[in-house]
Amino acid sequence: MPKVQLIGATGYGGLGILELLTAHPEFEITGLVARDIRSGRSVSDIYPHLQGRCELPIATIDEITVGDNADIVVFSTPDGVSQQYAKSLNDAGIRFIDYSGDFRFKSEADYGKYAGKHPSIRNDAHSVPELLPQAAYGVSELNMDSIGQADIVGNPGCFAIGIILGLAPLFDLDIVENNLALVDGLTGSSGAGKKPAPLQHFSHLNDNVVPYRVMNHQHTVEAELVLGGLNGTKPATVEFIPHLLGTTRGILNTMHVNLNRKLTRQNLLEIFDEFYSEHHFVRVLDTAPTLKDTLASNYCDISAFVSDDQSRAVIISSIDNLMKGQSGSALQNMNVMFGFDPALGLERGPLYP
Amino acid sequence: MPKVQLIGATGYGGLGILELLTAHPEFEITGLVARDIRSGRSVSDIYPHLQGRCELPIATIDEITVGDNADIVVFSTPDGVSQQYAKSLNDAGIRFIDYSGDFRFKSEADYGKYAGKHPSIRNDAHSVPELLPQAAYGVSELNMDSIGQADIVGNPGCFAIGIILGLAPLFDLDIVENNLALVDGLTGSSGAGKKPAPLQHFSHLNDNVVPYRVMNHQHTVEAELVLGGLNGTKPATVEFIPHLLGTTRGILNTMHVNLNRKLTRQNLLEIFDEFYSEHHFVRVLDTAPTLKDTLASNYCDISAFVSDDQSRAVIISSIDNLMKGQSGSALQNMNVMFGFDPALGLERGPLYP
Amino acid sequence: MPKVQLIGATGYGGLGILELLTAHPEFEITGLVARDIRSGRSVSDIYPHLQGRCELPIATIDEITVGDNADIVVFSTPDGVSQQYAKSLNDAGIRFIDYSGDFRFKSEADYGKYAGKHPSIRNDAHSVPELLPQAAYGVSELNMDSIGQADIVGNPGCFAIGIILGLAPLFDLDIVENNLALVDGLTGSSGAGKKPAPLQHFSHLNDNVVPYRVMNHQHTVEAELVLGGLNGTKPATVEFIPHLLGTTRGILNTMHVNLNRKLTRQNLLEIFDEFYSEHHFVRVLDTAPTLKDTLASNYCDISAFVSDDQSRAVIISSIDNLMKGQSGSALQNMNVMFGFDPALGLERGPLYP
Amino acid sequence: MPKVQLIGATGYGGLGILELLTAHPEFEITGLVARDIRSGRSVSDIYPHLQGRCELPIATIDEITVGDNADIVVFSTPDGVSQQYAKSLNDAGIRFIDYSGDFRFKSEADYGKYAGKHPSIRNDAHSVPELLPQAAYGVSELNMDSIGQADIVGNPGCFAIGIILGLAPLFDLDIVENNLALVDGLTGSSGAGKKPAPLQHFSHLNDNVVPYRVMNHQHTVEAELVLGGLNGTKPATVEFIPHLLGTTRGILNTMHVNLNRKLTRQNLLEIFDEFYSEHHFVRVLDTAPTLKDTLASNYCDISAFVSDDQSRAVIISSIDNLMKGQSGSALQNMNVMFGFDPALGLERGPLYP
Repeated sequence: MPKVQLIGATGYGGLGILELLTAHPEFEITGLVARDIRSGRSVSDIYPHLQGRCELPIATIDEITVGDNADIVVFSTPDGVSQQYAKSLNDAGIRFIDYSGDFRFKSEADYGKYAGKHPSIRNDAHSVPELLPQAAYGVSELNMDSIGQADIVGNPGCFAIGIILGLAPLFDLDIVENNLALVDGLTGSSGAGKKPAPLQHFSHLNDNVVPYRVMNHQHTVEAELVLGGLNGTKPATVEFIPHLLGTTRGILNTMHVNLNRKLTRQNLLEIFDEFYSEHHFVRVLDTAPTLKDTLASNYCDISAFVSDDQSRAVIISSIDNLMKGQSGSALQNMNVMFGFDPALGLERGPLYP
Repeated sequence: MPKVQLIGATGYGGLGILELLTAHPEFEITGLVARDIRSGRSVSDIYPHLQGRCELPIATIDEITVGDNADIVVFSTPDGVSQQYAKSLNDAGIRFIDYSGDFRFKSEADYGKYAGKHPSIRNDAHSVPELLPQAAYGVSELNMDSIGQADIVGNPGCFAIGIILGLAPLFDLDIVENNLALVDGLTGSSGAGKKPAPLQHFSHLNDNVVPYRVMNHQHTVEAELVLGGLNGTKPATVEFIPHLLGTTRGILNTMHVNLNRKLTRQNLLEIFDEFYSEHHFVRVLDTAPTLKDTLASNYCDISAFVSDDQSRAVIISSIDNLMKGQSGSALQNMNVMFGFDPALGLERGPLYP
Repeated sequence: MPKVQLIGATGYGGLGILELLTAHPEFEITGLVARDIRSGRSVSDIYPHLQGRCELPIATIDEITVGDNADIVVFSTPDGVSQQYAKSLNDAGIRFIDYSGDFRFKSEADYGKYAGKHPSIRNDAHSVPELLPQAAYGVSELNMDSIGQADIVGNPGCFAIGIILGLAPLFDLDIVENNLALVDGLTGSSGAGKKPAPLQHFSHLNDNVVPYRVMNHQHTVEAELVLGGLNGTKPATVEFIPHLLGTTRGILNTMHVNLNRKLTRQNLLEIFDEFYSEHHFVRVLDTAPTLKDTLASNYCDISAFVSDDQSRAVIISSIDNLMKGQSGSALQNMNVMFGFDPALGLERGPLYP
Repeated sequence: MPKVQLIGATGYGGLGILELLTAHPEFEITGLVARDIRSGRSVSDIYPHLQGRCELPIATIDEITVGDNADIVVFSTPDGVSQQYAKSLNDAGIRFIDYSGDFRFKSEADYGKYAGKHPSIRNDAHSVPELLPQAAYGVSELNMDSIGQADIVGNPGCFAIGIILGLAPLFDLDIVENNLALVDGLTGSSGAGKKPAPLQHFSHLNDNVVPYRVMNHQHTVEAELVLGGLNGTKPATVEFIPHLLGTTRGILNTMHVNLNRKLTRQNLLEIFDEFYSEHHFVRVLDTAPTLKDTLASNYCDISAFVSDDQSRAVIISSIDNLMKGQSGSALQNMNVMFGFDPALGLERGPLYP
């Protein structure tokens, strides 16, 4: 049974994969690591909802060796952390998956574009650029083979995966005019993590909608690279306006593209159906996806609509940002890396109502 | 002091104008009318929050004469109701304002386009088309003069007014390519009124986002006509995707246009500043508007952003759908009709936090 | 593998048990029945979140025979429904579990007390009173043996089970003065089901707290009978004030009792620990339970506090009203009835954040 | 026109009184002071919802003299701040009102009880105890005369005022057994202020109910003193369990007392009606108060219920914690202090829906 060491165990990302792994039949957790926690304290002390479910102790990063007693290390950590451990893990033949942008890019130049847009990365240079080419980008629906063989997987950004899954079939067919997509993204608060902050303060966010970082979010970089790479005709442009909502979980992206040939709605839905026919976690719907219909599950729900003159399309995708947008995708990738069914341990369905 | 008769007093629209009129120094309420209410019952019996504030009795429509003892009748009623009383009121020289689409259009043909898209209008024909040309469309910021002289005012749709105010300066200058705007609208639940329904059922809507009537909402018709009329070069197209949110009040529209000449963000903000310099209730912001910053007030907050290549603009507008989107605009129109300061009785500011 | 027929499959109760049974390794669903659904339609047509998870067709009650091809029938139906089928099922040796109050009482007299308080039961008489004595009351933590042998299980009321589990250890020890408990119950909206109604209308309930049926809720009857029965010294009185909250799921009961002997908080927690030592789904916490820490799970979290003079105790319990308060308990009971581990198929943990 | 200097202008309390004063016809704001704000910045820079409404600059405490150019100073500041300025203001004959507990108590001993329970007061000693006897406790409905003559007013705690108004008529008549009340208080998040914190983090609080400081909240001290003082027979005990809700505004207290004589519900409601007959802001309702029916207004809604045996009563009160629970009461007190109608500037009604 593969052994997993989890770095960053007490953030929402760590919590997400911890809960999934606790119930997974084929992985064994051998270490939990977190900052700012009194060493040895049980994770259920900090999160009472885990009482009776997971009582593992937490270590500080100083007390352990990253990679020790592990077949895979999961970094649910901010940008820049996994870079520090990447070389030694790689040299030791220990695989790892990282939740930040550290290993989402194939080249130093692409990473630099991302880092330059990121609000908290100060030094745009990657510290181990030589490892970037061997890292796989963790969208299983597009990169199953490379993920299966990779030692390093860069788990995708939560906004990015919803945009990519929603637009990939169209970019793949090269039917998007100018490779340009306009995206209004709606997100719950949990994507910002557990750290109290003014934007996520309840009195401010409740009953509110807050557009932020208008046309200036770093997740567009990976979406543009992946989508542009699907047809190779020209760089993709994703004009993205994120909106923070007064809800905890979920990302719903509403995406507008001009089509370079006329299509009916039926044509469009068939394109999606075919593209995702082998992919359990993408559901193509006749009706518009809603935020709640994917809540707590690993699904990405997608539907598509066409303007009366058949020249423009609107694609809507919905995910749970902490599942398909983070830990669900991470586990799906880990399943692929170790040859298990991609859906193993991800059977939990949406929570409705 | 002008006398007001209110038809439809117990819906959210009626409630909104009732609360405003109760505190208004220059209007007198002389009649409240509602369906399905036991005659003579006080409005505070039905709505306890009005206890000690407004104890007026409610009559049924059969017990009163529409227009009786009134200088103006406010119809906060569904489509089709005011049409039935329009001719007799007009003949009697009694002014009226209507919340539905009955008098938002200048011609039978335009009304027909709207009626054809409306989910609950069965007969597309207008019953008093001869009165349409004399009705004013109730966006005071654009039509102050015609509203001031009108006997009939068609109060705008809640989505429409946010779209129109957000795009009017650009259409007026004819700088929108193809007169085409793509709009993602986010709305609270109260726009659907007080009648319990599956979409507005708490367990369904809470924590949810529900796109609905994708590219098929009747409010686009009036927005397209008004915006297209501002430059007269070609019909406007508003591609509109409404999203229902788990919040009570507010509409935030995020709007995308291609510009037919390059503009900086500074240029754009100056265009808005100038266009609305005389208009108290439109606030042009440096930061993105939020839903909550207009909550409970009559403001429309607007900001604008430009893509890196200066070829595309994103405009965001925020209103309280029951105020600027309904009763606030209605009172503003009534103030204009009777020569009062447009802001009289609308001094209440946003409720934050 | 026991076969299950589910009556009332499209309400929130039916949906809850359907989702659990779909993932359960030891039960097979052989029939779904609902009112007001076009016959033959798939349940995932009505609830898109089930797409790819459960595509079973739904029959109307007229098309099927209740009990046909079933080892157990689950009635997730309003009061009065299962009474109609009880005798024929019982005669045929088919077990059933009912979500309403039909089989929660041991005598016609007790049922009458409940029925008299119920807002929608018009005829207080039970139609098959002779079956009441053989029905088990479905709180597994108290009645494991009788449930295991019962042909009929009356699933408990959602408020009742949280009150009963929170107070049982104290009533069992007969340390509650006058057998009197004062209970403020806070509930999410989903307990009222999927039918749109004014109290559950989003615009009304959002940001609201609505006390209702103050000291007049029918669930107190079963709580009083069960608690009073634990020490047999005198009838129990539960003075209950339900409060409807603007949240979808969860019931948190805050309960006040006078103690007839002095106890420290430590004493109290030990009493609870011991009482529930064998019961997986009751977690005794050092900290006050929160609504969210049981969300989506079958746990009942409990903690207890004592006044400075040690004469009064406050007990707080938290459950997910659709899980431990309804379908989770139902499945737990079904597991007990068929000799499975009580927790089988109920492994899903709380959804946090 | 009396001049007001506001200390602590950018917290929720400061914001609340600022908005009220901006619209008040008889007070003039002559100074805004706040910590941690770049000096000279306009308050509408920090709070965009004030744009076009209040553009006053903010000074730091070092730049101004407290009391300068002021007839009254409002301290919307944490415990301990106004104590530092009290003596010099008092000596200079400048009146002040304080939002903290600094001047809610008549004696050093009583203040010490409060300070000892307060989570952030380290030194229980009051620094100007000699001023305590001359301060009035700011519940206008009970202390109109003393407030009118006071130089110092201690504005009540948000929980305390709802408890006091709800129980005062019963304690005044000395009909509460043992002067003991059990209170479950439900509060929105805004009472905790604008500072981001784990309990008020959106992802934690949304859809949650969190009981906290069970039987250990400092507001009980003032409630016990005021209520006990009304009949003088024995000290009052308020056993209080606060619950934090996922809503922004509002406090609903559900209060249980044993009656020392039998009363019908009608008796009880008449007692309340009579007690508050002269008090505009207390509304006695036939139905249970709801949180939303007082939202954004200065009302305290109250109703009362009696157990079947007429031995116990349940009283429910609802306020907006930032209005009647804070700035609304402060302005009401200021009106009384300067001889204006208590309701001046407080005309705004509840925001429904």
